[in-house]
Amino acid sequence: MIKFLAPSSALLVIALLTLTACGEQKSNSNADSSAQTQKTYNWKLVTSWPKNFPGLGMAPEKFAQYVNSMSNGRLTVKVYGAGELVPGFEVFDAVSQGTVEMGHSGAYYWKGKIPAAPIFSAIPFGMTATEFNAWLHYGGGMELWQALYQPFGIKPLPGGNSGPQFGGWFKKEINSVADLQGLKMRIPGLAGEVLKNAGAIPVTLTGGEIFSALQSGAIDATEWVGPYNDLAFGFYQAAEFYYSSVWHEPGTGLEFLINQQAFDDLPADLQAIVEVAAQAVNESTLAEFNARNNAALKTLITEHKVKVRQFPAQVLQELKRQTDALIADQVKADQDFARVWQSYSEFLASMRDYNQLTLQAYYQHR
Amino acid sequence: MIKFLAPSSALLVIALLTLTACGEQKSNSNADSSAQTQKTYNWKLVTSWPKNFPGLGMAPEKFAQYVNSMSNGRLTVKVYGAGELVPGFEVFDAVSQGTVEMGHSGAYYWKGKIPAAPIFSAIPFGMTATEFNAWLHYGGGMELWQALYQPFGIKPLPGGNSGPQFGGWFKKEINSVADLQGLKMRIPGLAGEVLKNAGAIPVTLTGGEIFSALQSGAIDATEWVGPYNDLAFGFYQAAEFYYSSVWHEPGTGLEFLINQQAFDDLPADLQAIVEVAAQAVNESTLAEFNARNNAALKTLITEHKVKVRQFPAQVLQELKRQTDALIADQVKADQDFARVWQSYSEFLASMRDYNQLTLQAYYQHR
Repeated sequence: MIKFLAPSSALLVIALLTLTACGEQKSNSNADSSAQTQKTYNWKLVTSWPKNFPGLGMAPEKFAQYVNSMSNGRLTVKVYGAGELVPGFEVFDAVSQGTVEMGHSGAYYWKGKIPAAPIFSAIPFGMTATEFNAWLHYGGGMELWQALYQPFGIKPLPGGNSGPQFGGWFKKEINSVADLQGLKMRIPGLAGEVLKNAGAIPVTLTGGEIFSALQSGAIDATEWVGPYNDLAFGFYQAAEFYYSSVWHEPGTGLEFLINQQAFDDLPADLQAIVEVAAQAVNESTLAEFNARNNAALKTLITEHKVKVRQFPAQVLQELKRQTDALIADQVKADQDFARVWQSYSEFLASMRDYNQLTLQAYYQHR
Repeated sequence: MIKFLAPSSALLVIALLTLTACGEQKSNSNADSSAQTQKTYNWKLVTSWPKNFPGLGMAPEKFAQYVNSMSNGRLTVKVYGAGELVPGFEVFDAVSQGTVEMGHSGAYYWKGKIPAAPIFSAIPFGMTATEFNAWLHYGGGMELWQALYQPFGIKPLPGGNSGPQFGGWFKKEINSVADLQGLKMRIPGLAGEVLKNAGAIPVTLTGGEIFSALQSGAIDATEWVGPYNDLAFGFYQAAEFYYSSVWHEPGTGLEFLINQQAFDDLPADLQAIVEVAAQAVNESTLAEFNARNNAALKTLITEHKVKVRQFPAQVLQELKRQTDALIADQVKADQDFARVWQSYSEFLASMRDYNQLTLQAYYQHR
């Protein structure tokens, strides 16, 4: 605890930190002209989620509300669910082409276009939410992300974090690596490739298809998000075992995508409002997921008698081994991935040591 | 990972969450009148830290920068270090009396006036930063905090978090509870009382006095903040052992104090700007502490050969036992403390289980 009765003689004056400061956005020479400050801007924001989807879909709604309030209606943001204006997987293109001014999504969806993009959402055995925010703001992450999207005319901003996602729902217990062989699991992205290399059969299904596939036995297992969203989908009715093990998405970052030209056209005060509103949403979304996941897990256990399990160490070690191999391939295959991964992995290694000494030890002894 | 190709048939529409929404602040019936939106407001913000102090002191600077930019100068916030306008420990009174419009401080400083206040900054063996944010925004914490400060005409807002604070600097190793007996340690607040009940002698010193007291042997040990601030104070030159054990301040919340009348006098858009700016600062301050603490710890270990230690389990158990006893006394002594503690402790117990299954397990196996 700090206790100053008077300014300390050891006072240190450090230079104003400028990394993520909003006040710097003064690129518009005519930003403060009277004509521009009176002008009204009406933006469309498309998302990869159903309208008002719990957690993920509420982040852009809250952003819109903040911007509308702070700008006193000079900048209005209207949020569209996936498929209302453009399909969920075309959010990036719509923002890039200027069809809409903004999007809310997850960077791993753009892997086909930008192989390094998944690093800005979730990497198996990667950073937690607070580690990720530290890297983005104070470890060089934002600069790398901006450089990656710049050729597409898109300015990215962090747009919330789901916190740790759960290992998923399984119809049978997983007691060894042998139990993964031939296991049909709905799990997309890098984690799906990892599981495939470990002997399982990853299946790609959209949100609406998963429950019936799990219930019919067409798949043996599925991951989704965490207790809050999983409870709403009713997976406990179709699978007995809920694996709380965190491995494939330890702290999934969401993103705001902004058309750079649309952003540049705003006066400086509205630019600041967009940036600060996004940062506030980044904070509250993680808080919401933590609170609601926690409450939902209690409901799943006490009301729905779900059996919570952890993967055995052997299984996690195999998944980690396959993850390392897969990332080594990505580093060889793509220069951008290699460059971003170097920054990410160095920061992660360092934070891993730090959190081992602090939070990990604290969770154990408190 | 969520993957929607089209709005899911399992789409869930939930009511707009209104817990911390800014748009609701429409209490001024004349908020949007032309006269009021053109008016300029010049606010003073006093703090309990030296001007521009690393981490803690940068949070209000960033807040001021955000507000100034977003309001295009209609609301300017000028930040004063401790002692420049009012002493660091008179921040609360200055805001309450309307001498200044805002303050930035830590709630545990007001324990003499409001016994329950420390719950909104740090409680030994209490919540981590992300747990605390979840409780404030989605667990009823903010409402309790507002009710506690309301009689003083103050509106509180979260104002950043230091993350886990370190156990402190010791001239000798602590291998057992016996080593605490008669130990003179600079440690204020509830933690000081806990340590006293465990046999040590807590000493109160201001920031500028600690280093020389530690070097001369007038004290045997001191806690301060974490590696980032501790490195700057040079404590490694006066004590050999740095205990990374987190116990007394697992995630210290900072606060913005706002004079309620001054807030009510603002038009609705400037009210929203104040609230959202504070929330954004709450996010970035934790990120800054995590990144800089981590880097500073590396410097302490590699350049200054500091010996990092953890308290043995026996010592932590004794500190926990004394903490529980002290809190039981507070619950008996003060109705407000009892009411807030019930909410806090229930949420903590629940999050403890949740994070044990998720983050704690993840830190161990990743």
